[in-house]
Amino acid sequence: MVEIVKAKNAGYCYGVERALKLVEESLENLKKPFYSLGPLIHNPQVVKELEEKGIKAVKSLDNIFSGTVIIRSHGVKPQIIQEARAKNLDVIDATCPFVRKAQLVAEQLKKEGYTVVIVGEKTHPEVEGILAYADNNAVVVDSSREISKKKFSGISRIGVVVQTTQSLEKLKKIVAKLLTFTLELKVFNTICNATRKRQDSARKLAQQMDLVIVIGGKNSANTTRLFQICQKINPFTYHIESPDEIQKSWFKSVKKIGITAGASTPNYLITEVEKKIQGFFKH
Amino acid sequence: MVEIVKAKNAGYCYGVERALKLVEESLENLKKPFYSLGPLIHNPQVVKELEEKGIKAVKSLDNIFSGTVIIRSHGVKPQIIQEARAKNLDVIDATCPFVRKAQLVAEQLKKEGYTVVIVGEKTHPEVEGILAYADNNAVVVDSSREISKKKFSGISRIGVVVQTTQSLEKLKKIVAKLLTFTLELKVFNTICNATRKRQDSARKLAQQMDLVIVIGGKNSANTTRLFQICQKINPFTYHIESPDEIQKSWFKSVKKIGITAGASTPNYLITEVEKKIQGFFKH
Repeated sequence: MVEIVKAKNAGYCYGVERALKLVEESLENLKKPFYSLGPLIHNPQVVKELEEKGIKAVKSLDNIFSGTVIIRSHGVKPQIIQEARAKNLDVIDATCPFVRKAQLVAEQLKKEGYTVVIVGEKTHPEVEGILAYADNNAVVVDSSREISKKKFSGISRIGVVVQTTQSLEKLKKIVAKLLTFTLELKVFNTICNATRKRQDSARKLAQQMDLVIVIGGKNSANTTRLFQICQKINPFTYHIESPDEIQKSWFKSVKKIGITAGASTPNYLITEVEKKIQGFFKH
Repeated sequence: MVEIVKAKNAGYCYGVERALKLVEESLENLKKPFYSLGPLIHNPQVVKELEEKGIKAVKSLDNIFSGTVIIRSHGVKPQIIQEARAKNLDVIDATCPFVRKAQLVAEQLKKEGYTVVIVGEKTHPEVEGILAYADNNAVVVDSSREISKKKFSGISRIGVVVQTTQSLEKLKKIVAKLLTFTLELKVFNTICNATRKRQDSARKLAQQMDLVIVIGGKNSANTTRLFQICQKINPFTYHIESPDEIQKSWFKSVKKIGITAGASTPNYLITEVEKKIQGFFKH
């Protein structure tokens, strides 16, 4: 008998659910057309559905002169919201409250005179937004290996803020290394609980199951991290975006199958994956 | 041919040297008799010499009604200095400037509303002093093992200060563990450079030498730590207080001998040890 187990914490996080809800509630009341600055969430299926509802993902405000701009859960630099308002556009600010906290922390640390360190991916939109709140004057580090004496020697006060989807382990390593070079270190652990819980559940799943399916956009940072965490524990881990990618051959001599999903993965996709796998075992 | 190497950084630290100098300069100008609150430094030989100069080590101010009280480099709780002044005693405050910094940091963190964590030995006088500056309301931890969810869960703002003679490695481990439980962590690395340098030199010595002699009071925390560091690397490590303790048998088939000494060890003791060992190899 095969067993399919869904991770205790998987799929939509608070920020994504809130963003989608905000958009849904606003569609009737605000000015058309609707634009989201970048895909609203990192899931191609959902983005396609949103497009069908008339929400177009755009890269910048450059060619937008009317309608409503949606700021996605990742947040943006404050100048973009100012620019949208200056253009007389309606704005739906769906910035995740946890990201908002990280932005405000970055701003506060900068004001307090700290050299700001952002733990995260340099090119991630969330990090770019946080960076802007630190007056675009912060060091972004993605690994403790990037912390060198050359870079940090002589800096006596360092303030640390973290991309909400980062892992606690990485933060610990980076903070420990920074302690070598600085006299005063102020750290705000802005990692959001949802990420931590989802990662803990995934870890447990990878340990207990024969095979793990991680569902989520290939461009989703938090899904990719879930995949990495599971793969390290269980080499039989697969990262898929949609049920179509699942291959029957994966499940040969497999008894316990775990499923987890990134923060931008809708529930219906998880259910579809579950059903497809069940299908393989029906006679 | 035998080789005797003294560690690059060994013996008196800035705070101890300064304390002894302050006392020496003050002897003629201040009121007799002289008392030091606790042994002025953690070295029995030096304490004996100071006694001969008329400085008596006492445990408390209880039976002192005239003369001068010397506050040693470890510092004391502020109430003791107040009490001494109230008793109309002269006070030589030889608190090490690095310890003073740790005291002020503890006071500041407390005022800023942090739950204060002192990394250090609960019963060490330096820690007792720092604790008093945090209104005697701080958690003293000596190892990351002491940090439990039970103790720290629900505390959102933690401020960390460190006994000046602690190791950076321990601080790193404790800070990393605290990050698991708190949202905001402010760390002042008040470990003094002298300790770090002395420890680094000792480590190098233990790696390169066949045998290591660590000189310093058995009651000296920093000497004991030097001993532990060396012994972990090189099992042929001996902790002595005076040259008398050295045994010829230790040096059988030994070619490279390293010497290091704690922060309270006077230079002349280091020289005596060196000479005694050289004597063993003279024919």
